[in-house]
Amino acid sequence: MEEAGSSMPLPDFFSLVRTQRAHRAFADRPVSDAVIGLVLEAATYAPSAENRQPWEFVVVRDPQLRARIGDLTRRVWDERARDFARRRLAPGLFADVEAGATGGVSRAPVLVVVAADTERGLAATIPSSIFPAVQNLLLAATALGLGSALTTLTTGAATELREIVEMPEHVVPVAVIPLGLPARNLGPPRREPVSAHTHRDRFGTSW
Amino acid sequence: MEEAGSSMPLPDFFSLVRTQRAHRAFADRPVSDAVIGLVLEAATYAPSAENRQPWEFVVVRDPQLRARIGDLTRRVWDERARDFARRRLAPGLFADVEAGATGGVSRAPVLVVVAADTERGLAATIPSSIFPAVQNLLLAATALGLGSALTTLTTGAATELREIVEMPEHVVPVAVIPLGLPARNLGPPRREPVSAHTHRDRFGTSW
Repeated sequence: MEEAGSSMPLPDFFSLVRTQRAHRAFADRPVSDAVIGLVLEAATYAPSAENRQPWEFVVVRDPQLRARIGDLTRRVWDERARDFARRRLAPGLFADVEAGATGGVSRAPVLVVVAADTERGLAATIPSSIFPAVQNLLLAATALGLGSALTTLTTGAATELREIVEMPEHVVPVAVIPLGLPARNLGPPRREPVSAHTHRDRFGTSW
Repeated sequence: MEEAGSSMPLPDFFSLVRTQRAHRAFADRPVSDAVIGLVLEAATYAPSAENRQPWEFVVVRDPQLRARIGDLTRRVWDERARDFARRRLAPGLFADVEAGATGGVSRAPVLVVVAADTERGLAATIPSSIFPAVQNLLLAATALGLGSALTTLTTGAATELREIVEMPEHVVPVAVIPLGLPARNLGPPRREPVSAHTHRDRFGTSW
């Protein structure tokens, strides 16, 4: 019996996923509304519980608002995250993350505040209904040559972030995603082999 | 100044996302380990907080184990979800979901139990570190012609689900994903226009 996928050439998707990296430094070049629209539309094709599509996207271009989000991010980093991250992360990764949190990310020409409308989706299903859309967004950006990153640090100060983008209380910010031309090309991502975390029928049985 | 993406043909990715649908009925045809490996490897290229890659995948082919997962899913549906879903969902969607929960999903030749190792990732960052990988998994399946669905119902009975696949307590199941040849082709997904949920700089300002 023929098995699924046994004779196909590998679709481009498999190359695309291998080029996705977290970009935290951006070139000083604009990104059009048309491109942002394509990226966000791709996000909306992700699945969501009950097909409720609870996502909301605030596309922040205004330099003053981006600076305020940047200041807030730096404050959360200084007060709650830096020392903890320093203990946990390898020095190179720590330096990248710190450079992003203290200015790099907010210098992207576009910040997308991704949020969930809790009146549209059940609270328990928000994560499984929002992060697939976020991943579509990141992949779409990658496919169009944009740098992006999934950052959640700023959402730790949800009240202040909401205030900056005038978001009502029933809408919960879940991520801030910078979009822009990458300042530099990054190499391929480093990942553990899939076999290290894949099990056959029972946990602990090797694949 | 040239804007990003202004003159590119649209990458295949944008067609791929538009063909992703939740499949809950599967043909009686096998899926090879090689194909499953490709799908899971694509999953691991998703971003995760601190690059901790907290995912674990249990690939369940054993018919008895799949039947036990199916029985558990049906029990959670009967006891906790059916009446609630009936009140919330349109009749057509309710019928699809019920058919999936009461047997359709567990008749897929492969069930992937996706879980998060809480010793590898910070609890607060598990959702943002797992569901992007889940979305890569679903898109990779779609790209290879497999049907799939993001189901979370069974994870409501985490203790019982863990017992079936012999998963230790520090590993938290977050989704059960059926993979198999689709029983039928489904049309394009229905989505609200992206402009309905996109805001310019401030929430409520139209895009």
